[in-house]
Amino acid sequence: MMMDGCIHIPTLQDMLAARQRIMRYVHCTPVQTSRTLNALTGAQLFFKCENFQKAGAFKARGASNAVLGLSQRQAQNGVATHSSGNHGTCLTYAAGRRGIPCTVVMPRTAPQVKKDAVRGYGGRVVECEPSTSSREAVFAEVVAETGAEFVHPYNDHRVIAGQGTCSAELIEQVDGLDAVVAPIGGGGMISGTCLTLSNLAPHLKIYAAEPEQADDAYRSFNAGYIIADDAPNTVADGLKVPLKELTWHFVSTYVTDILTASEEEIVDAMKLIWKRMKIVVEASSAVPLAVILRNPRVFAGKRVGIIITGGNVDVDKLPWTRGELQ
Amino acid sequence: MMMDGCIHIPTLQDMLAARQRIMRYVHCTPVQTSRTLNALTGAQLFFKCENFQKAGAFKARGASNAVLGLSQRQAQNGVATHSSGNHGTCLTYAAGRRGIPCTVVMPRTAPQVKKDAVRGYGGRVVECEPSTSSREAVFAEVVAETGAEFVHPYNDHRVIAGQGTCSAELIEQVDGLDAVVAPIGGGGMISGTCLTLSNLAPHLKIYAAEPEQADDAYRSFNAGYIIADDAPNTVADGLKVPLKELTWHFVSTYVTDILTASEEEIVDAMKLIWKRMKIVVEASSAVPLAVILRNPRVFAGKRVGIIITGGNVDVDKLPWTRGELQ
Repeated sequence: MMMDGCIHIPTLQDMLAARQRIMRYVHCTPVQTSRTLNALTGAQLFFKCENFQKAGAFKARGASNAVLGLSQRQAQNGVATHSSGNHGTCLTYAAGRRGIPCTVVMPRTAPQVKKDAVRGYGGRVVECEPSTSSREAVFAEVVAETGAEFVHPYNDHRVIAGQGTCSAELIEQVDGLDAVVAPIGGGGMISGTCLTLSNLAPHLKIYAAEPEQADDAYRSFNAGYIIADDAPNTVADGLKVPLKELTWHFVSTYVTDILTASEEEIVDAMKLIWKRMKIVVEASSAVPLAVILRNPRVFAGKRVGIIITGGNVDVDKLPWTRGELQ
Repeated sequence: MMMDGCIHIPTLQDMLAARQRIMRYVHCTPVQTSRTLNALTGAQLFFKCENFQKAGAFKARGASNAVLGLSQRQAQNGVATHSSGNHGTCLTYAAGRRGIPCTVVMPRTAPQVKKDAVRGYGGRVVECEPSTSSREAVFAEVVAETGAEFVHPYNDHRVIAGQGTCSAELIEQVDGLDAVVAPIGGGGMISGTCLTLSNLAPHLKIYAAEPEQADDAYRSFNAGYIIADDAPNTVADGLKVPLKELTWHFVSTYVTDILTASEEEIVDAMKLIWKRMKIVVEASSAVPLAVILRNPRVFAGKRVGIIITGGNVDVDKLPWTRGELQ
């Protein structure tokens, strides 16, 4: 993504091309509503259900765009990434659809279900120690050995253009939105959202929702430069990663505000979605509802789109049955 | 429902009238599919998602039909029922939409979430001891005191006609079905399914799916007369109740076969639906998939509709986190 010191910032054309490229490989996911949650928040909420997306998460969009956009020569050695979460699974899904190999470097301490998910889609898992230095060393070995194309989980123009297709669908599915709220971790989804909305619906407000216990984006946003957390810990495990230069560009330029929620608020919102909407969503996906419930005045009377980012939950280890939180 | 010794068997006209009557009060629920579950079963499965129904269960259909069909005079004293499950909640929902009171007699040992659900929709809970004699005595008191109209959970022609609207939608939503599989407890849903399909799609096979540990319908079906279980116990708690004369009529006349599944198979199927389809469904709703997985030859190559009956789960007490089953 960094080439000759330049950074390739994806454009509206890139997003539109992504949409064409991936349309046969990903779902146009449904938008769901809940009278109860509307009553509770005083807003009209429209949930874009990427938990129903291929491989269970919005990351199938960006991963598919990256994989399908490779030339034959680029694709011949397959793709590789490091991820202990949805990006690894989704990249494997996309590689499988193109029929090329995919290697995912993961800490040996990553949950077994995540390793199983990558293998279930036909990917190869290579384990590293749970440290940045080990991950980088092991990943370099993988690339040297395979010649695979690196697809970063979020700091990649192809990935961001792909994620932008989600809000492109949303604004076609729901008229008259006032705002969109999406979770923020590394910033891939929020950057795609900014890319699309700043071009196609620039009057919409864009809120990023972040766990208090991993609030590096919140602090970066307020400081005006990237601040990385030191080993953040949150139940919303998809949101622990830091912003990078490309996502920082979108966040610092287009995001209206970043709002945070406590662990308890996130788990309560997650349970509320399960109970009231009858859908299985990840903790990360509940952060937007948690910040809306915490900041009712910001959203009251508004038509608000919420990106439900994914549904890949280990149902044997739910946050409220682990004994950590009730 | 028993009048002058006669039994009112609902007709296609009753179902069609129910559909008109309730259409503004219940959802036409979506049909979802899963490539993974198709691959696993060798069949093409179409899940009719009544977990997204009003009040979280198909029983909103029958309850709404009963409540909305009452004359002004019949409705003036409200409605009452005995139920520790979805019928109580759904009858309360329907009564609330008509603006009449609803009383639900429940064992004092019923789960708090069920009592809270009835109260949450504005209903009154009256507790009895957990025995048939206490329930009947308390219920008689409630009716004497209020003059409320009794709406039985399933042995009621209005309720069965309402439940029949579910498969009427399903056959419009999915072309070329070969079979429909629905859970069986008291037999309200399966009777409604029989009513509709025997008239509108008589070539479809109708399978009832039942827990092995509450297999009174299976044994009745094979014996040719109603056999009641003695205190059945199953994780599919909506399916513990016995057949009654009206539901027995439909089951004995129109059902192709009754297939059973073990507790472990039901819980495995439930987890599979949660993990793969990302929807919250009750254990009862998983019994059809469990019997399909157990009897692959019956369904291989077929287009099979499955009624997902509801999604009212106590997420704090999941079957696989209770320590009873893994």
